[in-house]
Amino acid sequence: MLEDKIKGTIRDVIDFPKQGIVFKDITPILENPELTSEITKAFVSKSEVLKPDAIIGIESRGFFWGLLIAQAMDIPFIPVRKKGKLPYKTISYKYDLEYGSAEIEMHEDALSKGMNVIVHDDLLATGGTAMAAAQLVKSQGANVVGFSFLVNLTFLDGEQKIAPFSNNIISLVNY
Amino acid sequence: MLEDKIKGTIRDVIDFPKQGIVFKDITPILENPELTSEITKAFVSKSEVLKPDAIIGIESRGFFWGLLIAQAMDIPFIPVRKKGKLPYKTISYKYDLEYGSAEIEMHEDALSKGMNVIVHDDLLATGGTAMAAAQLVKSQGANVVGFSFLVNLTFLDGEQKIAPFSNNIISLVNY
Repeated sequence: MLEDKIKGTIRDVIDFPKQGIVFKDITPILENPELTSEITKAFVSKSEVLKPDAIIGIESRGFFWGLLIAQAMDIPFIPVRKKGKLPYKTISYKYDLEYGSAEIEMHEDALSKGMNVIVHDDLLATGGTAMAAAQLVKSQGANVVGFSFLVNLTFLDGEQKIAPFSNNIISLVNY
Repeated sequence: MLEDKIKGTIRDVIDFPKQGIVFKDITPILENPELTSEITKAFVSKSEVLKPDAIIGIESRGFFWGLLIAQAMDIPFIPVRKKGKLPYKTISYKYDLEYGSAEIEMHEDALSKGMNVIVHDDLLATGGTAMAAAQLVKSQGANVVGFSFLVNLTFLDGEQKIAPFSNNIISLVNY
């Protein structure tokens, strides 16, 4: 099963980025071209029914499959980045983290009204960043038709935070 | 011609990230799936002759075509990231910038001795980061068989800095 293969390839890194957190390291997957391609195909097959016009990928690990999915579906890829990284005029959204806050941006002309998009990232934790990306999409008059994640840390309840934008939450691996 | 199509799609952003710099914004290319795919094919056709075992992609914009090329060639993709971003044990290399310095990292087990790799980034400017990535490759006993960039700002002479590692410097667009 694909989920088992992915789980068997992800590396747990203890105490990263801080004490007490077990980080899911996906870089060993990228070193396995067959598995990387299988994952793209699984995402595409689950995304097709949602008929997205574009994939939004969240910096930086959301760039990996975000762009692979967009290319496989022959649709645009739109990066969402941390504040100050995108060169052209942007719209931004600030959100709270456990300690402090973060701000993400999208180019102001990346989306047009009525477009249907999937917001993609490698991992769903508490859902703060995915929710912020969805807010950016909505503020442009575009629609979030779904979310996709390689990994869903279900015990952190991120789905609850993003479900108001779309109930179509794709994840290939759940912990 | 592909070079003209790419140049016609890249957006010049004046004074980013600081006064006096004209930034080459490649995000409009990613919004064009056909052109993105054409670029991948061009990279692959120029990379095949070098017979790489893996593609090294430099954070963050080097992740875009770095992974697309690796997938199209059915070989591993290895990310090089800014200090502190990779979760597992890393090797790092510090290098000078115009003002101050920067440090990049690679997982210590990402490469094995004798592997042949291409170092990829979206843009070659002064060559500092590409050179640092090549140093990381060499320190693992692996070989840089080439470099690839979407854009080469030839007036900054980056080629001079990286040529000692490999003379095979692929770029699709030159300014």
